[in-house]
Amino acid sequence: MKKFLNDPANFVDEMLEGIYRAHSQVTYVNDDKRCLVVAKPKAGKVGIATGGGSGHLPLFLGYVGDNMLDGCAVGGVFQSPSADQMHEVTKYIDQGAGVLYIYGNYTGDIINFDMAAELADIDGITVKQVIGNDDIASSVVGEEHKRRGVAGIFFVYKAAGAAAANGLSLDEVTRLADKARANVRTIGVALSSCVVPEIGHATFSVGEDEMEIGMGIHGEPGIGRTKLAPADDVVDQMMARVFAELPAGEGDEFAVLVNGLGGTPKEELYILFRRVSQLFEAKGSKVKYVWIGEFATAMEMAGASISVLKLDAELDPLIAAAVNTPFFAHYKA
Amino acid sequence: MKKFLNDPANFVDEMLEGIYRAHSQVTYVNDDKRCLVVAKPKAGKVGIATGGGSGHLPLFLGYVGDNMLDGCAVGGVFQSPSADQMHEVTKYIDQGAGVLYIYGNYTGDIINFDMAAELADIDGITVKQVIGNDDIASSVVGEEHKRRGVAGIFFVYKAAGAAAANGLSLDEVTRLADKARANVRTIGVALSSCVVPEIGHATFSVGEDEMEIGMGIHGEPGIGRTKLAPADDVVDQMMARVFAELPAGEGDEFAVLVNGLGGTPKEELYILFRRVSQLFEAKGSKVKYVWIGEFATAMEMAGASISVLKLDAELDPLIAAAVNTPFFAHYKA
Repeated sequence: MKKFLNDPANFVDEMLEGIYRAHSQVTYVNDDKRCLVVAKPKAGKVGIATGGGSGHLPLFLGYVGDNMLDGCAVGGVFQSPSADQMHEVTKYIDQGAGVLYIYGNYTGDIINFDMAAELADIDGITVKQVIGNDDIASSVVGEEHKRRGVAGIFFVYKAAGAAAANGLSLDEVTRLADKARANVRTIGVALSSCVVPEIGHATFSVGEDEMEIGMGIHGEPGIGRTKLAPADDVVDQMMARVFAELPAGEGDEFAVLVNGLGGTPKEELYILFRRVSQLFEAKGSKVKYVWIGEFATAMEMAGASISVLKLDAELDPLIAAAVNTPFFAHYKA
Repeated sequence: MKKFLNDPANFVDEMLEGIYRAHSQVTYVNDDKRCLVVAKPKAGKVGIATGGGSGHLPLFLGYVGDNMLDGCAVGGVFQSPSADQMHEVTKYIDQGAGVLYIYGNYTGDIINFDMAAELADIDGITVKQVIGNDDIASSVVGEEHKRRGVAGIFFVYKAAGAAAANGLSLDEVTRLADKARANVRTIGVALSSCVVPEIGHATFSVGEDEMEIGMGIHGEPGIGRTKLAPADDVVDQMMARVFAELPAGEGDEFAVLVNGLGGTPKEELYILFRRVSQLFEAKGSKVKYVWIGEFATAMEMAGASISVLKLDAELDPLIAAAVNTPFFAHYKA
């Protein structure tokens, strides 16, 4: 195992200590480093919380900051945080306008966030939920509710964060977050496994000349193993599935996220984007906003995912809005 | 070889095509994608150019943008760009105030930048040079001129970029860039090799339980192979060498860059930074600015480097200045 580690049992908490030492923009509540919140909540604003397992940085906690999220409950590697942790985050970030939970479609997270919402309700805090389910490889059309949430949640965070920063109500922030959720699709491809620190060896193996389209960010099975194809062919296969669900016509506008899973160099992500861009161009569509880099990882897993958001007049300015978090900053486009 | 590639011979040019399709902030001149420049040079400003081999994104081209660099000559993987490419970039970015070259201390780059400076001189363009040599593992004290340039060049770019944006003269921008250069030290540790696309296999091997402190970003030999130690011990070994050259006393202020070489997850970089921060704290020194992530990589090499810049009243505001490039954005601290 080639990792910078002390005791693997302390992996998450030492990582969090590093984060608090590095970034004064965030802090924690209830004397629990796993209850991460913005240091200065904005009075009167709808609060937005997320949460999930560790091992996916910048997901989930990296998006807590100006114009995005207000808090994050942090679980162990690939494990849900507890309902109590979510509840503590909720109490802190509520500014009287209610709280929206945005997280991925995983059973453990759903159970705990549901329980946290009930606890918040007892406190008199109104909570709404939007559950990311953008991974088109994880279930068929018509069964979208079974799909996993992956990197596309970035766009849901961005839309909701900007809407809340604009002073909209909880109902409106929820509606816009849900619209972003409904308009985003992601497909991934894995080339190698990651190593969970407490386990110490690869979670699965992919043959030296193989790839797996649709593999989940914890190693969940994808659509199938095939020989590793040239980059353009890989993108063509992936984007054919995206376009089948999210038609791109003349004049349509999109935001695209080409996300490295951890072990893939940025150079290769740009080679993938080159082809993605050509495909949109061929359809007469415009990629109006693009982010390329590591936004939702599986530690050192080699591979990439492509997330596509169809823009409209409401979503466009929310996606363009300036953002400043410890892991992600950009100026207004 | 687990890479997203088409023809390996097109690796650099397809990557560049992806970059131009993604980022309208940059473009190229002389009909050569490897002559990358800002789309809108700022009139009257000192121009800043860099250059070097590909395979290190975001280095070098990723720092071309607002408040940093104006142009970059892009070489093949781990190869110097040509003097002609540097010259073309120089001609474009010169706005009458002269041009500063900032690049790393590698023979090929020096030869070509020297030749480009001579060509620019014939054009009547004044060129100055600052050559990064921050890698303390690559030569002993007293022979700093033999040291390689690595991730610490980030701070030189940042100081020079802000100075130029402030309207300072070429002499002043050069002086401040050189001051940053003289005040920064870097030490790296490699856990695994990278794979050069046109070669297709690992450049070198590091045993399953080994690490190499001081290895260069092209696989140049470091101080020696040892058993992979716990993360805190690794940092202690690295920082002992940094502190020997850059003493940290009560009240001293520093900027720190913890840089992933490519294959190491961000989680681990934060575990490393946790220890770095503890060491400065124990000395009564302050880490005033910190960046953690991938800033100078060797494609998929696993490993990390730590760069430390000693701040003073002149450097501080330059390091704090807001920056907006395709690969790096941050707001004023």
